Amino acid sequence: MPEILGHNFIAGQRSAAGQHRLQSLDASTGEALPYSFFQATEGEVDQAARAAAAAFAEFRQLAPARRAEFLDAIAAELDELDDAFIAIVCRETALPTARIQGERARTSGQMRLFAQVLRRGDFLGARIDLALPDRQPLPRVDLRQMRIGVGPVAVFGASNFPLAFSTAGGDTAAALAAGCPVVFKAHSGHMATADLVACAIQRAAERTGMPRGVFNMVFGGGVGEWLVKHPAIQAVGFTGSLKGGDALCRMAAERPQPIPVFAEMSSINPVIILPGALAKRGDSIARELAGSVCLGAGQFCTNPGLVVGLQSPQYSQLLADLGHQLAQQAGQTLLNAAGLRNYVGGLEHLHAHAAIQHLAGQAQTGSQAHAQLFKADARLLIESDPLLQEEVFGPTTVAVEVQDNAQLRAALLGLRGQLTATLIGEPEDFEAFAWLVPLLEEKVGRILVNGYPTGVEVCDAMVHGGPYPATSDARGTSVGTLAIDRFLRPVCYQNYPQALLPAALRDDNPLGLRRLVNGQWREGAI
Amino acid sequence: MPEILGHNFIAGQRSAAGQHRLQSLDASTGEALPYSFFQATEGEVDQAARAAAAAFAEFRQLAPARRAEFLDAIAAELDELDDAFIAIVCRETALPTARIQGERARTSGQMRLFAQVLRRGDFLGARIDLALPDRQPLPRVDLRQMRIGVGPVAVFGASNFPLAFSTAGGDTAAALAAGCPVVFKAHSGHMATADLVACAIQRAAERTGMPRGVFNMVFGGGVGEWLVKHPAIQAVGFTGSLKGGDALCRMAAERPQPIPVFAEMSSINPVIILPGALAKRGDSIARELAGSVCLGAGQFCTNPGLVVGLQSPQYSQLLADLGHQLAQQAGQTLLNAAGLRNYVGGLEHLHAHAAIQHLAGQAQTGSQAHAQLFKADARLLIESDPLLQEEVFGPTTVAVEVQDNAQLRAALLGLRGQLTATLIGEPEDFEAFAWLVPLLEEKVGRILVNGYPTGVEVCDAMVHGGPYPATSDARGTSVGTLAIDRFLRPVCYQNYPQALLPAALRDDNPLGLRRLVNGQWREGAI
Repeated sequence: MPEILGHNFIAGQRSAAGQHRLQSLDASTGEALPYSFFQATEGEVDQAARAAAAAFAEFRQLAPARRAEFLDAIAAELDELDDAFIAIVCRETALPTARIQGERARTSGQMRLFAQVLRRGDFLGARIDLALPDRQPLPRVDLRQMRIGVGPVAVFGASNFPLAFSTAGGDTAAALAAGCPVVFKAHSGHMATADLVACAIQRAAERTGMPRGVFNMVFGGGVGEWLVKHPAIQAVGFTGSLKGGDALCRMAAERPQPIPVFAEMSSINPVIILPGALAKRGDSIARELAGSVCLGAGQFCTNPGLVVGLQSPQYSQLLADLGHQLAQQAGQTLLNAAGLRNYVGGLEHLHAHAAIQHLAGQAQTGSQAHAQLFKADARLLIESDPLLQEEVFGPTTVAVEVQDNAQLRAALLGLRGQLTATLIGEPEDFEAFAWLVPLLEEKVGRILVNGYPTGVEVCDAMVHGGPYPATSDARGTSVGTLAIDRFLRPVCYQNYPQALLPAALRDDNPLGLRRLVNGQWREGAI
Repeated sequence: MPEILGHNFIAGQRSAAGQHRLQSLDASTGEALPYSFFQATEGEVDQAARAAAAAFAEFRQLAPARRAEFLDAIAAELDELDDAFIAIVCRETALPTARIQGERARTSGQMRLFAQVLRRGDFLGARIDLALPDRQPLPRVDLRQMRIGVGPVAVFGASNFPLAFSTAGGDTAAALAAGCPVVFKAHSGHMATADLVACAIQRAAERTGMPRGVFNMVFGGGVGEWLVKHPAIQAVGFTGSLKGGDALCRMAAERPQPIPVFAEMSSINPVIILPGALAKRGDSIARELAGSVCLGAGQFCTNPGLVVGLQSPQYSQLLADLGHQLAQQAGQTLLNAAGLRNYVGGLEHLHAHAAIQHLAGQAQTGSQAHAQLFKADARLLIESDPLLQEEVFGPTTVAVEVQDNAQLRAALLGLRGQLTATLIGEPEDFEAFAWLVPLLEEKVGRILVNGYPTGVEVCDAMVHGGPYPATSDARGTSVGTLAIDRFLRPVCYQNYPQALLPAALRDDNPLGLRRLVNGQWREGAI
């Protein structure tokens, strides 16, 4: 059994100054695991934020290749985390072993992908406008631009991805890649996991000679507010509930110096099933959709919570098949007891709504979550009824039947911002419903054709973001390499001597970057 | 005399539904000019925002080259604005003719520069990760990403640049380039100017066949709040005071759907004069600095409001020379009466502060602004005294004398975020003070060497931005082509048939873009 100290991580040291201890729980049984954690004091949060600030100047000025070494070293340390580690993650989250093994690989792969971004160098956004001393009526001075990290970043991990969206997850990877030291707030749902991952990051930081304070982690319930309000923190990454994300945004906006918050929050991920596909393969769609709804007990940000189709016997049949599939599913243990309470509460709200009908699903009792299918009146979407727009975190989906294209359009226009929208169709559907694409582009971050939204590829082209309330800022993504942009800001150097310029902007181009020079993309030296 | 109707601009039409009329004033005499303007009603603001929303889908989907035609047509219309127009701008702002002629060229040049960005196409950020059907353990689906406009943008122009930061200014150009229709709130200080410029934009829109509603403009005092709170508005651009910018940020954050605000607000633009330069050319520095302080009556966002030097006889001499220069300057008329009141108030606060001493400047009386030099105790910077950090909008600067490098460092660390910082030095200074550069990088958007911050080049490499309170979001710039990024968000297309993909992402690459394909930059088709 690996040693789990339960102390906070501050400036490369462990710290246990507080009195209050927190216990890690077995997600399946609710029993206490033999690990306890010291809730950070306000002083410790302050020290962690100051440690990050102290590390910033050195860390951000490291050559990108040096930061890439650090990320690669974290990846190697994550891959080394063994079966005993996997067993602890599974106990804390009730997620199956294969899933956690896959998530470990995804998390280390994500670190390596950001290391590639650092070696490619385009994240620096190098731009050079050379002096034009003879320009009329006024000469132009030499101007050069590149991007630097915004400063220390506070990251709040998610309950549902204890590795990929947590301690060494996407927000941490993006911030570190950008040159921003991190203060991570460990999620109370998997503190032993967080402790072991933070130790892995710590080993990588030591091995690659990173400044102390490049990564810090604090435990505890109310400590997030101290962190977001700390003057050293310059940006926040968050994955979680709409309520939690909104609260962080408010805190950040009310600081003497407001800071940006990138919160990934709430999405019901509509799946629109078009007539041609319904006619040709309704039964397989029902099966696949049920699989997506129930995957990971429905605890995905991209879980399909809304199914939309045009009124037809085929659509009625699909709902019957889908209900049949969902009613057959075995109960699943959720990430924690609070998750189950929220799920039960969400179902009660759906059951209680006069314009929503329960179609299928075993009675929700006991300690496991049972899959459910509801059907809502289309006007609830058209009139933007808030209940229908709320994410029910678990294996449940709500079907909507629209009468015609006009009602389909009105229903989709009534949707709030989403992470994803999915079109299930045949070629003839895409011709007939081509008008759906621009409409959905304005609502979501990712549009899928003939797939299911669960399963988010980590790559350059991914967008895991979208208009509010899917996220707090549609201009960002929390998965994929574009995530680094959230933590960078541009700086301009005017009339600089070569010796003072950062390497990215020197005439001799020592980093081998492709740069925008006088409005043209150029490689090599100037 | 050009005809100035004074009606609001809504969806390509003029509208005068309200009762309340506003008068344009001669900035030098305060007398009413023969133009009056209809304050927009809440209904008209709603119509303008809806018109922008209605235009969005068509406008954002135009080929970038079509939007470039529109921007080029605006540029041509601006260049056509004649001497009678220039005379009106000068009467409304008290700015001299040559300055306004230059600003007209800068404003049309800015439109043409964004047209080039559109033709270059890199703003689209096209990224493609091709399907890997045989990948283990799971295949990868085809994923493609590009950026689209965020939606209708509300723009608030600045008083001090009636053309370049106003109706057809940088925020409008960036938003239109991004595919975002604009609702512009005309500045009360130059409504006749705004009317004529909006007519020019309107002519360009008609000539190039843009959708009605691509550009709208409303007049009036309290109408900005309706605009920022309107659900159709998706982002805000603003140039003005800290108080005004903070208020807009609060409104935007408190909306049911919060939206980003890019506010360029307050900066005192420190100029640090290093010992070698002082010894070699103190007298010319004093003369140049006085010119920068008094340029445009000190009404520039980048006006040097703080001069910092190490205690020495040479620095004392420089301050004496600078005071002499400033005391000799003739009074200048400010943009409007409120500006003069604010300037007088700002000077009174400086005079009243026990740790600030008045060094030079004619007594501030009458209707013109007189240049002033103050000297503040270094501890006011070190202790972040708010008074010293407040921009006094006019021809005034405050000198600070530090005793040694440690105090210089502490003083600069005490600074809030700035648009610019300037180093005046000789080569040996830059060797001795190389540590200043990284410190300033963390405080400002642009660092200048041996220049003066007034005069902001419009180019790819410019950053007119910086940490709060210089702006509300250090990740943006309001001058230069990077400004387009503020109004774009990424969208991902998963497993899309070629026919449904936007042109930027099709295999055959019809826009001829350089794209990130499987992690490598590639030109041509796939």
